[in-house]
Amino acid sequence: MLFERIESEGLAHYSYLLGSGNEAVVIDPRRDCQVHVDRAAQEGMRITHILETHRNEDYVIGSTELAARTGAEIWHADSQLDYAYGNPVADGQRWRIGEVEVQALASPGHTPGMMNYLLHDAGGRLWGVCTGDTLFAGSVGRVDLAGPERTEEMAGLLYDSIFERLLPLGDGVLVLPAHGPGSVCGGSSIADRPWTTLGIERRHNPRLQVASRQEFVEQTALTQPFPPYFAMMERLNLEGPPSLPRLPTPPPLAPEAFQTAAGDGTIVDLRDSLGFQAANIAGAVSIWTPRLARYGGWFLPYDRDLYLVAGDGSVTPAVRTLVRLGYDRIGGALAGGMEAWQSDGLPSGSLMNITVPQLRTLFEKGGEPWILDLRTADELENEGRIQGAYHLPLTDLLARMDEVPREENIFVFCGSGVRSTIGASLLARQGWRRLTVVMGGMEGWQALSASRR
Amino acid sequence: MLFERIESEGLAHYSYLLGSGNEAVVIDPRRDCQVHVDRAAQEGMRITHILETHRNEDYVIGSTELAARTGAEIWHADSQLDYAYGNPVADGQRWRIGEVEVQALASPGHTPGMMNYLLHDAGGRLWGVCTGDTLFAGSVGRVDLAGPERTEEMAGLLYDSIFERLLPLGDGVLVLPAHGPGSVCGGSSIADRPWTTLGIERRHNPRLQVASRQEFVEQTALTQPFPPYFAMMERLNLEGPPSLPRLPTPPPLAPEAFQTAAGDGTIVDLRDSLGFQAANIAGAVSIWTPRLARYGGWFLPYDRDLYLVAGDGSVTPAVRTLVRLGYDRIGGALAGGMEAWQSDGLPSGSLMNITVPQLRTLFEKGGEPWILDLRTADELENEGRIQGAYHLPLTDLLARMDEVPREENIFVFCGSGVRSTIGASLLARQGWRRLTVVMGGMEGWQALSASRR
Amino acid sequence: MLFERIESEGLAHYSYLLGSGNEAVVIDPRRDCQVHVDRAAQEGMRITHILETHRNEDYVIGSTELAARTGAEIWHADSQLDYAYGNPVADGQRWRIGEVEVQALASPGHTPGMMNYLLHDAGGRLWGVCTGDTLFAGSVGRVDLAGPERTEEMAGLLYDSIFERLLPLGDGVLVLPAHGPGSVCGGSSIADRPWTTLGIERRHNPRLQVASRQEFVEQTALTQPFPPYFAMMERLNLEGPPSLPRLPTPPPLAPEAFQTAAGDGTIVDLRDSLGFQAANIAGAVSIWTPRLARYGGWFLPYDRDLYLVAGDGSVTPAVRTLVRLGYDRIGGALAGGMEAWQSDGLPSGSLMNITVPQLRTLFEKGGEPWILDLRTADELENEGRIQGAYHLPLTDLLARMDEVPREENIFVFCGSGVRSTIGASLLARQGWRRLTVVMGGMEGWQALSASRR
Amino acid sequence: MLFERIESEGLAHYSYLLGSGNEAVVIDPRRDCQVHVDRAAQEGMRITHILETHRNEDYVIGSTELAARTGAEIWHADSQLDYAYGNPVADGQRWRIGEVEVQALASPGHTPGMMNYLLHDAGGRLWGVCTGDTLFAGSVGRVDLAGPERTEEMAGLLYDSIFERLLPLGDGVLVLPAHGPGSVCGGSSIADRPWTTLGIERRHNPRLQVASRQEFVEQTALTQPFPPYFAMMERLNLEGPPSLPRLPTPPPLAPEAFQTAAGDGTIVDLRDSLGFQAANIAGAVSIWTPRLARYGGWFLPYDRDLYLVAGDGSVTPAVRTLVRLGYDRIGGALAGGMEAWQSDGLPSGSLMNITVPQLRTLFEKGGEPWILDLRTADELENEGRIQGAYHLPLTDLLARMDEVPREENIFVFCGSGVRSTIGASLLARQGWRRLTVVMGGMEGWQALSASRR
Repeated sequence: MLFERIESEGLAHYSYLLGSGNEAVVIDPRRDCQVHVDRAAQEGMRITHILETHRNEDYVIGSTELAARTGAEIWHADSQLDYAYGNPVADGQRWRIGEVEVQALASPGHTPGMMNYLLHDAGGRLWGVCTGDTLFAGSVGRVDLAGPERTEEMAGLLYDSIFERLLPLGDGVLVLPAHGPGSVCGGSSIADRPWTTLGIERRHNPRLQVASRQEFVEQTALTQPFPPYFAMMERLNLEGPPSLPRLPTPPPLAPEAFQTAAGDGTIVDLRDSLGFQAANIAGAVSIWTPRLARYGGWFLPYDRDLYLVAGDGSVTPAVRTLVRLGYDRIGGALAGGMEAWQSDGLPSGSLMNITVPQLRTLFEKGGEPWILDLRTADELENEGRIQGAYHLPLTDLLARMDEVPREENIFVFCGSGVRSTIGASLLARQGWRRLTVVMGGMEGWQALSASRR
Repeated sequence: MLFERIESEGLAHYSYLLGSGNEAVVIDPRRDCQVHVDRAAQEGMRITHILETHRNEDYVIGSTELAARTGAEIWHADSQLDYAYGNPVADGQRWRIGEVEVQALASPGHTPGMMNYLLHDAGGRLWGVCTGDTLFAGSVGRVDLAGPERTEEMAGLLYDSIFERLLPLGDGVLVLPAHGPGSVCGGSSIADRPWTTLGIERRHNPRLQVASRQEFVEQTALTQPFPPYFAMMERLNLEGPPSLPRLPTPPPLAPEAFQTAAGDGTIVDLRDSLGFQAANIAGAVSIWTPRLARYGGWFLPYDRDLYLVAGDGSVTPAVRTLVRLGYDRIGGALAGGMEAWQSDGLPSGSLMNITVPQLRTLFEKGGEPWILDLRTADELENEGRIQGAYHLPLTDLLARMDEVPREENIFVFCGSGVRSTIGASLLARQGWRRLTVVMGGMEGWQALSASRR
Repeated sequence: MLFERIESEGLAHYSYLLGSGNEAVVIDPRRDCQVHVDRAAQEGMRITHILETHRNEDYVIGSTELAARTGAEIWHADSQLDYAYGNPVADGQRWRIGEVEVQALASPGHTPGMMNYLLHDAGGRLWGVCTGDTLFAGSVGRVDLAGPERTEEMAGLLYDSIFERLLPLGDGVLVLPAHGPGSVCGGSSIADRPWTTLGIERRHNPRLQVASRQEFVEQTALTQPFPPYFAMMERLNLEGPPSLPRLPTPPPLAPEAFQTAAGDGTIVDLRDSLGFQAANIAGAVSIWTPRLARYGGWFLPYDRDLYLVAGDGSVTPAVRTLVRLGYDRIGGALAGGMEAWQSDGLPSGSLMNITVPQLRTLFEKGGEPWILDLRTADELENEGRIQGAYHLPLTDLLARMDEVPREENIFVFCGSGVRSTIGASLLARQGWRRLTVVMGGMEGWQALSASRR
Repeated sequence: MLFERIESEGLAHYSYLLGSGNEAVVIDPRRDCQVHVDRAAQEGMRITHILETHRNEDYVIGSTELAARTGAEIWHADSQLDYAYGNPVADGQRWRIGEVEVQALASPGHTPGMMNYLLHDAGGRLWGVCTGDTLFAGSVGRVDLAGPERTEEMAGLLYDSIFERLLPLGDGVLVLPAHGPGSVCGGSSIADRPWTTLGIERRHNPRLQVASRQEFVEQTALTQPFPPYFAMMERLNLEGPPSLPRLPTPPPLAPEAFQTAAGDGTIVDLRDSLGFQAANIAGAVSIWTPRLARYGGWFLPYDRDLYLVAGDGSVTPAVRTLVRLGYDRIGGALAGGMEAWQSDGLPSGSLMNITVPQLRTLFEKGGEPWILDLRTADELENEGRIQGAYHLPLTDLLARMDEVPREENIFVFCGSGVRSTIGASLLARQGWRRLTVVMGGMEGWQALSASRR
């Protein structure tokens, strides 16, 4: 039997490839899907089926692309929606893949139509369940996507799915969720366990330690931020996204050509925070490649071409992430990076920065820095606050930018320094000038405090 | 957290790499161990600990090599043995790796000193156990390695380890064994489930469906063949094997140079069975690369140089397998393969072959072919017999070769045609001439019968 | 400066990638052209120009595909033809690529519109010339493609191009031809020199050692076989071939599914000759992957799906070759290869074979075998003949098959055994049964004779 | 025939692999030599010979390592020296490699014992010459290594070697030098031509455009800087360097462990200049990986462990360069890079920077910045000067550091900003504080001026 969990890095999204005999099925394929085709072919297997757990909102699903490359049947879960492709799944439906069987298990809650998939081995023994966004390691799916007015209803459904449908399958069954730690969907609450089971979740998942359905609903029926790109993802996943014959190769553009072309587009600076601080192009949005999946959808437009600035390495990982988020308009990449930009005598800006030991010294000397803390409310609660800091979560920054004074020296603060640089870049392109990034952020602050004790 | 199961293909052996923070541990490293070093370094982790589950008998463990490359501590399990390296593990011993903890759990049975390792996550929650050769998916470790006189004692210990120490950990705990399906150790009885848990094994492992310790002992205290290379492996794993600075690259030798050099060595023909049947060098032992891990140790000498004949591809996969079995004396590879051999006008032999439809026709016409069936007794019992076939398991062939008549036309038979070609090559180098391989073997025979119905 | 010669293996075709600053040009791109895009992007260069030396007849050129991926301009050479894409080149035309310059040099002969391209460095110094099919290492282009009636005219033009336009550029200029040794176009006459210059060719190219234009014309105005696929290539290269968004992945098919599907198609057995001899599917055409570029176009149809049988390795190299020859209809690949075929109990045929020592013994014992020699007339002349052999070049076999007696034991013979197996497969699918392949062929025969002396 | 030029990136050093039949020779192998072994084996060739052109001074040659892996014979050129390994080459000596021949041609000048190697094809035709450090594209080898008192003598010998031995071989012969553009040996004078010939060099190499031996000697007998590591290279290449069984993998160290360990070593910051400017560890030497081959030998000690700080990517390219320069003492790498350093709350420094447009504005406003220009005298002459700048070549900085005032604001300047950052890091670790790097350097300055016109 072939079984692989394929991670889309950054998104922390998992696709699953299951094969037996000469057939294979992919559950929730990613858009840059040739990896599935190649892996199956390498094992002498043809992908015959594609199963979706639900209409995803956080990435573009690869079902139509993979079907175009393999001829596989597509089965989508949210049968009440009006998909432009594929067939609707019925609860209890079964598919034969070589010598093994996969069976659908309706588990509404995250979405009304969510399906989970039971995996049996050749002897008919259940060994795993693809839980989609129903159940994660240490967490459960959010229930506010159907609208704020339905969160209680959906939380109740989620309780029933988990407690009445999943847990009774038995402690020994592996839980194969659609997301791992670091996902937008599960947030920071997804636990860092490589593999998990219904038994481990039953005992250790904090969301399942409830005395009643009512208690679960009260704890789970929360509203979370709804990134602007979710609407685009939902539409694409309903209509089927544009064909992506291969990963795009953005044309490398010499600095002046880049400058000219980018005039009508948006510059995305993918370098790490320090490189951006030292020198950056006017108007560029800083998003370090490893954070692109998490923050790209908040700050990048779909209706303008993107122009990429990368560091030492290639832009391929960023391009891969962008197309997974539906950003197909990539106009070019800066050939030679910022070194070439400087060597062509072009102007650039910079951001000041400060280490946490320096920040502490500032406090110790009686300074009262205007600190802009971009972390989430949860982080503030769990990891503590900096005295006097002004709290404005990064994802609200565009909407609430006016709360940041222009005439003050702003010390931009977050967990480690990455979000501060994103935030500072957003402020800088709107004209803020007196910006200092606190490197290390709360992690550094706490480490420093610990080392003092 | 970093967690990877690294398979040594062919051996169906699993090493495990577990990392947290900037540290990592490898459990049962393979000898060609750079894969562990590279993977850890890629994640910013240093391998600080090497844990052995037991003194292995079926492959050369990579502990000393990996320690030489990383400075990691070695901990070996069989503390009653006199190892030339490393430190002995005590039951209950704990190690901290970054933010997680690993704990030893004595589980004798397969060997007297077998240790299993409990894996906890950063919150101290047990999520998996490395079961070594104690418990496999669908099977348990063999208990006859300490000698035939101790099998009942060892089977009893194994029962205690599984039923009193492992299963009480809870159904939800992942079982991470040292072997997957296809292993020499677990034989064909290891189930083809990608991942498993204590709960799945408790319910579905046929060896655990017993009413009492006594019943388990009766069913498990069996003696199985003891391949000749096991003794070498045990010695190397006690003394520490010779250093292997990198994977050897056997020098490509032109046909005549190969012929000359191989005069004092053993030729191993790694091509698939059909290629060997069509043309082969006198005296060559046929072992198709994918079966080298399973049969190499039975038929290849340690005290002579090996000379390799490969097909289209490279010899690297075979070399990798050979060094894992402790075969460090690889004298060369035939440059240009059998095509070059023929183009140099050198002599070769061939084997006749027959398809299963042809064999059936032969029977239908009243023929009484002398069939040599090289399958195991288990296979005969489970998959049926060919009428009138003479049974002689491949692994006994060298010892019992005289039972095969020289003057008959011998139809060599096995499960699919691979072992028949190995067996025919062994017979041919001892002078048997009238040899015909039955392609497809019992699989083909049964498929043919099924299609008839 | 970036400069790479990219070989299309098998075809022995060379594309050239030349880059400077942030721009690059590709001369005669191959159809699976992403390699050019990636390599240029890796160096921070954008492909801005595509230059064709001529309307090629032996492979599908990648100009339209590469233009679709990069936006580069296409310039085709044969301006008198009616191309459906691109712009016609004028003699002497210049292009600036970053800091270097490329200039067209008309050099008719192989085709009436052939263009060569002069490469200058940043200082304006000529250092190389892309000679297309005008001049090769040790050979010149064939002149019969414009029709047998024009060979003398074309040979004269070729003389002028080489002697009056190329050689006067100076001995030190590198010759960068469109083909290396092993090409269909230059045949076996292309010399095995890794790189060459006008000086080396002037002195050592046997075709240039002539006293007069007349002598050159007499020696060069020859008619050679015209493979049937050339017509297809010429049409595709005029119209622009179908889009090839990525290399196809033929679906792996289980043996019975393969058998059924292949009923309406053509089976191509890509394994080496020995594997084919030992067992093969009825009707399969044997072409070993490394010879597919050379012989595929002679024996495979464009209007039926191809079904592939591969050995140990993957079918990717074969697929790559097939699409370069315009074979886009690839229906599937046999999952599990011939081993799976046998294990499913399906019938197969085989070919007898014989070594050259055995053939000699046959002669020595007075045998008079009916030998079918499939080599070319040139080979017979240069490398000798086997006494009594019947000569019929492989590429004429389909047309002249009736000359081969059906009732005789046919010993099929060639240079090394590969073409004999191709030929034997063609005969077998037309019903010939008494076929024996002579392994090693003339190479083996000569080596054997040499070792006797 | 197999022929490959293998570049050691950064060093711009070329090894050559030449194979024929089943044998191969490597000329000037690099120390991390498995690439040669693998490439030859892939072609079915065994490396039987290793030829050195001369006792190299700028990198560690891989002869003994490659011999240990292949059993090949080593032939070294400088027979008057007292090598601890290999056999001395005689002028005119010949070796047979498969069907081709290589012949030694003494060509003293760069070193007294320099040998060049003539490459013939299977027909005995000379097609190329490995010129070592005798002749490069657009340049010739330096003649001052035997000591300043012998430069004239050596320049005369070099003239004789080039004009009397090489050029008479004929314009058409390919020139295959030991270095390409970017080498320490040939300096910036090596031309950017991908391949060259004796004819091109005869006509276009500026060093060969002389009227007499005397003129050549006058122009060539120059003394250039002698990097401190040359002495170490010469010793290692005479004695045979320590065995390098495989590329080292520096252990990743968590920030505090790195800080502690590096206390007795030297920190090398491999990130690009901008990253270093934004934040760096006290005492770190900045050398961007792509410049490590050029500047590492000037500024890094052999007798202390090196500790590496890398950016996004891996340290492997840097490690490869370091071992080529004989730096085998690599103590570790900073796990998680500078992000982890900040997140652990550790202190760091930074450098100020300025763009060239800002520098111009400074001048325009009447500022008189103290500019430290680290370029070479040649660069100043060829590319111009900045008004009022103080010239001190980077490679002299350690010796002449006191010339830089401590109390001034120093604007560190070079060609593009890389060397300024190296220089600033050297100054900073000696206590200079008021340092500003001019990004873009002279390239940017000139581009800015050009855009103004």
